[in-house]
Amino acid sequence: MAKADKQAKPARSKPALRALKGETARSAPAKAAGKPAAKPALKAVPAAADDQPLIALNLPRGKLSPAMAAYFKKCQDKLGFVPNVLAAYAFDNAKLEAFVGMYNDLMLGESGLSKLEREMIAVAVSSHNRCYYCLTAHGAAIRQYSGNPLLGEQIVMNYRVARLNRRQRAMLDFAVKLTVQPGNVEELDRERLRRAGFSDRDIWDIASVVGFFNMSNRVASATDMRPNTVYHGKAR
Amino acid sequence: MAKADKQAKPARSKPALRALKGETARSAPAKAAGKPAAKPALKAVPAAADDQPLIALNLPRGKLSPAMAAYFKKCQDKLGFVPNVLAAYAFDNAKLEAFVGMYNDLMLGESGLSKLEREMIAVAVSSHNRCYYCLTAHGAAIRQYSGNPLLGEQIVMNYRVARLNRRQRAMLDFAVKLTVQPGNVEELDRERLRRAGFSDRDIWDIASVVGFFNMSNRVASATDMRPNTVYHGKAR
Amino acid sequence: MAKADKQAKPARSKPALRALKGETARSAPAKAAGKPAAKPALKAVPAAADDQPLIALNLPRGKLSPAMAAYFKKCQDKLGFVPNVLAAYAFDNAKLEAFVGMYNDLMLGESGLSKLEREMIAVAVSSHNRCYYCLTAHGAAIRQYSGNPLLGEQIVMNYRVARLNRRQRAMLDFAVKLTVQPGNVEELDRERLRRAGFSDRDIWDIASVVGFFNMSNRVASATDMRPNTVYHGKAR
Amino acid sequence: MAKADKQAKPARSKPALRALKGETARSAPAKAAGKPAAKPALKAVPAAADDQPLIALNLPRGKLSPAMAAYFKKCQDKLGFVPNVLAAYAFDNAKLEAFVGMYNDLMLGESGLSKLEREMIAVAVSSHNRCYYCLTAHGAAIRQYSGNPLLGEQIVMNYRVARLNRRQRAMLDFAVKLTVQPGNVEELDRERLRRAGFSDRDIWDIASVVGFFNMSNRVASATDMRPNTVYHGKAR
Amino acid sequence: MAKADKQAKPARSKPALRALKGETARSAPAKAAGKPAAKPALKAVPAAADDQPLIALNLPRGKLSPAMAAYFKKCQDKLGFVPNVLAAYAFDNAKLEAFVGMYNDLMLGESGLSKLEREMIAVAVSSHNRCYYCLTAHGAAIRQYSGNPLLGEQIVMNYRVARLNRRQRAMLDFAVKLTVQPGNVEELDRERLRRAGFSDRDIWDIASVVGFFNMSNRVASATDMRPNTVYHGKAR
Amino acid sequence: MAKADKQAKPARSKPALRALKGETARSAPAKAAGKPAAKPALKAVPAAADDQPLIALNLPRGKLSPAMAAYFKKCQDKLGFVPNVLAAYAFDNAKLEAFVGMYNDLMLGESGLSKLEREMIAVAVSSHNRCYYCLTAHGAAIRQYSGNPLLGEQIVMNYRVARLNRRQRAMLDFAVKLTVQPGNVEELDRERLRRAGFSDRDIWDIASVVGFFNMSNRVASATDMRPNTVYHGKAR
Repeated sequence: MAKADKQAKPARSKPALRALKGETARSAPAKAAGKPAAKPALKAVPAAADDQPLIALNLPRGKLSPAMAAYFKKCQDKLGFVPNVLAAYAFDNAKLEAFVGMYNDLMLGESGLSKLEREMIAVAVSSHNRCYYCLTAHGAAIRQYSGNPLLGEQIVMNYRVARLNRRQRAMLDFAVKLTVQPGNVEELDRERLRRAGFSDRDIWDIASVVGFFNMSNRVASATDMRPNTVYHGKAR
Repeated sequence: MAKADKQAKPARSKPALRALKGETARSAPAKAAGKPAAKPALKAVPAAADDQPLIALNLPRGKLSPAMAAYFKKCQDKLGFVPNVLAAYAFDNAKLEAFVGMYNDLMLGESGLSKLEREMIAVAVSSHNRCYYCLTAHGAAIRQYSGNPLLGEQIVMNYRVARLNRRQRAMLDFAVKLTVQPGNVEELDRERLRRAGFSDRDIWDIASVVGFFNMSNRVASATDMRPNTVYHGKAR
Repeated sequence: MAKADKQAKPARSKPALRALKGETARSAPAKAAGKPAAKPALKAVPAAADDQPLIALNLPRGKLSPAMAAYFKKCQDKLGFVPNVLAAYAFDNAKLEAFVGMYNDLMLGESGLSKLEREMIAVAVSSHNRCYYCLTAHGAAIRQYSGNPLLGEQIVMNYRVARLNRRQRAMLDFAVKLTVQPGNVEELDRERLRRAGFSDRDIWDIASVVGFFNMSNRVASATDMRPNTVYHGKAR
Repeated sequence: MAKADKQAKPARSKPALRALKGETARSAPAKAAGKPAAKPALKAVPAAADDQPLIALNLPRGKLSPAMAAYFKKCQDKLGFVPNVLAAYAFDNAKLEAFVGMYNDLMLGESGLSKLEREMIAVAVSSHNRCYYCLTAHGAAIRQYSGNPLLGEQIVMNYRVARLNRRQRAMLDFAVKLTVQPGNVEELDRERLRRAGFSDRDIWDIASVVGFFNMSNRVASATDMRPNTVYHGKAR
Repeated sequence: MAKADKQAKPARSKPALRALKGETARSAPAKAAGKPAAKPALKAVPAAADDQPLIALNLPRGKLSPAMAAYFKKCQDKLGFVPNVLAAYAFDNAKLEAFVGMYNDLMLGESGLSKLEREMIAVAVSSHNRCYYCLTAHGAAIRQYSGNPLLGEQIVMNYRVARLNRRQRAMLDFAVKLTVQPGNVEELDRERLRRAGFSDRDIWDIASVVGFFNMSNRVASATDMRPNTVYHGKAR
Repeated sequence: MAKADKQAKPARSKPALRALKGETARSAPAKAAGKPAAKPALKAVPAAADDQPLIALNLPRGKLSPAMAAYFKKCQDKLGFVPNVLAAYAFDNAKLEAFVGMYNDLMLGESGLSKLEREMIAVAVSSHNRCYYCLTAHGAAIRQYSGNPLLGEQIVMNYRVARLNRRQRAMLDFAVKLTVQPGNVEELDRERLRRAGFSDRDIWDIASVVGFFNMSNRVASATDMRPNTVYHGKAR
């Protein structure tokens, strides 16, 4: 007979957002056990979450600037949680601000690319790089922006199976080639984007989003960054 | 301002399980429109499903043997749907029977591997091969067998981020090496499995499941096989 | 002066088809030494064969069903030996029957592909995967079916050097792409096959043979399966 | 006799830093010819430079903020030129500021890594990605910081030939693995860095520099960004 | 029913060693038909051989020096044929002499490696590079030198399945690593060879044979060089 | 504050061309210290060179033939130094002569390829293989032959960024494909060269130079061969 199938969940006791609370990522279990996730504004991750600790590095939290503290509060109010990538950067306010500044410009600023298209690039790149954090967080974003749960799953798994229009297929083909063989991208590749309707400014934006996630995927993988578990169930 | 984000869903009108109804996979829209998914026993896929057609080949349905017809009925009764891979094979009863025979022996028969472990191998292999069908169907199976939705997502995305015990990690490391570089597997690799507690019979079973999904991934990718959409929402 | 060139052959004393005789693959040398390959019906491999043991796993032989026993006898009568892959599966009659059922349907059943073409696919796939067992057994099959010894050698070494017609070249290009990058196969690839004269049913058959050998290559490599030495000299 | 060896240099007439002057990257040769590199503060690139245009996209220059204008002036005063990557970003002041902010924090801010070590990471990553811009600019930086011209050449070509101490070798091995296979980086890799003397904060910094150049390499390759020719001759 | 299996052999009428007779590789069928392989000393390839033309380039034969003419005669007398690689180089006597000089020094000169070992390296390298010419000619050499037909087949297909002693396994592991990733070979790799009993001079010789076949494989593949068909049947 | 940036140069005391003086590559520091680089004709490498020893193998020097001794003298007189690759081969006069004979025919003999074009092939191949020795020595040769320092840097880093004419781009595309996937080169690839203006004899020469550097790159990497430091500063 086959063996019992219930997978024992790994024991975990570490609080979710220690870094945000000025604690280190790998220590202070005693204190954490005593006051688990005490600050309500940061009680982002459900009690059952097993994706802990949020990164595998022990980085004592630095002091947030008023701007960043306000930004975290805004995340909490609007999303119901602070994305773990922000919590991870919170050990150093200067690095956090640089990251947030670039992220918001690229993903939320003006562009000829829709926000959904930028998320599609993020996920196609992260799929090639097999980045658990980014696939989870941005896969959820595709599901939400598109209202099409299958689209998110397809781009996580293999963007070639998604039913894309010509513009979006050209965009993701470029994104993946630039991810896999950056040194082989040439004028012919840019011409393919132009023929699919993209302007030179759009090409810059595609390249920048591809670049950004090739950066973030590596920071996340290098630190074993864990996504907020709430992402998994969103917009299914 | 960024462009509108709503992704227009591709139009679709093709019935889900045409092959099962003796129709061809790419034709007969008129008849289908007139009698959409009429046979109740096969009304497996929700009306809103957009993953159509189930394969990209036009294969007229063959006649099912009584045994296979009964098996399809059993799927419908127990699962609520007939898995699309079975519908895809239904154009030729002999091929369907051979597939079902091997599948059921490997995935449901007696083994030193639990059913969950066999599904974990299926998904780790399918992740390397980027097989949309198998990742969707067997990712759902991991979520169901384990009761741990995160485990399914993690193995779909990158099995290395899952919190596995030593036995299961050794099993998946072997599975992925055998998938990526079958000609490089040697005695040292088998010894690693033995040291992780696997018997020689277990090693045969691991190799067979790895082999089977390296086969199925390729049949599914070659034919653009689409998973039943019901899988996506299961056990989240 | 250069060193002596005679390569000492590794000592071997293990009987060829122990698994078929109810012995284990790695044990019982004493008994074997006393009664080497005693059952005439199974004396398949020449005495001088050094490809022993037939697999690197110790799997006690199970009992063959009458159908499988008859099948082994038929192999012996018609081929003069039982292919080692069957002997390897003989530890479990259910697995043996599932394997034989699928193999015979795919490689010997009705198809728009000739038997030679199916063997050509088998070898091109096995060459990419560097599977010693399958290259040996199916390389011999190409030599036999085609009456052209060079064709077998060429597809073993690099199918691109074989003087193929357009149909067969398209078939093997598809087979190798599906082996190397299954997730990248798309409609364009199927269209190339159709333009080379293949029907949708033929495409299914090509995909299935590609899939089957991607499975068998991995079972053979994972278990270090050794081909009957008789294959090496066939149809040279 | 062999053919004449003098390689005709491609004709070029386009001014170096058009983007900085509010011109587009691909047009206006007439005006440019009339007033070549007229603004002294931007006369950064020698007249003989053939690496033109600085990017292959036509992006009209945006207006620089006072802070960025001052930063460009400071580059001109201290370096004698404005690095082309800054000129390339100058079409959009917000993107320029985000880039400069992150770059300066990572490469010039406080860290357990010396500035030379950060440049070594930059070049080892850029060598894998074959990024002409970054290899040229940061190869020069290694030559300058180290006072060892060979070290720069070696890391451009193959960091494994450089005579590195154990700490720096571990750092570059990690950097290259994170570049090539980000999804395969695990605790064992972080442990190797710790054993080589790096703190968790150092590991974050290594990962961030690796990530940053995996981003910049892709933006540079996607846009065919050209380095200031002055870099080639520096610190030889 | 399956289609007929007899593979029509491609028509061919071109003489085997045209280059050796001062003819071009792709022309002169009329003359050739009139006087097929007329010079007895060069009647090397059996009439039925289909591996024609010997290379895919049209190179008029140059005049052989007396030394090279004598060497060709010696080949004919001792082997019964002139190896096609020599015929291919015969368009230019200087290139032929340089090739023969280096080949004979490396493969037949004094060395701590036996001639068989040098052939094993040749075939393991050629297997990675999938060179039809070298696999055929040097696979035959392994069969002859070793008196073990299986050894030749195994190294052609996948050297890892051959039953090698520790010395020869270390030698081929080094050879294949140096072929696949030459830039990653380091002191540790040389140390592995020393621990397996090789002297520094032996390491030079291994590297030189690896290098030589990485050269020859590419010349043969670039020109579609065909082996003498007589090799296929040798020492089976 | 960041750590101090001065990279301590590794201590070195070994004379440059020990092999040429009959000493071994790894020993005899005492004697060497007493009479450093005493023979004027061989005082090739500047005193400050840190690329020592010239190879990582201990090979006692053999006796040079008069022809080779004269050739070394000629190098010294014309170049001001003996290229280290010649010094490395000097342990065995027969191997040295075979290498010099092939090198001079290929790189300096008559050909439809200019000497610069042959150097461009050498560097493009060596860049793929990441060969420090050949990139350094032949990168300098491109700078010298072309009078264009940037061209040398570009082909070292990524030949795709060089502003090449159609002929040279086709030549380097072929060279790199033949380096990366020799077994995939086919008639179509040769046709591309013919359409770019190359004769069949030119194709042979391209293939031969590609082959030669695929050999030399591996001998250099296997032995950790170090270039004369004088190359680094040449023709900048």
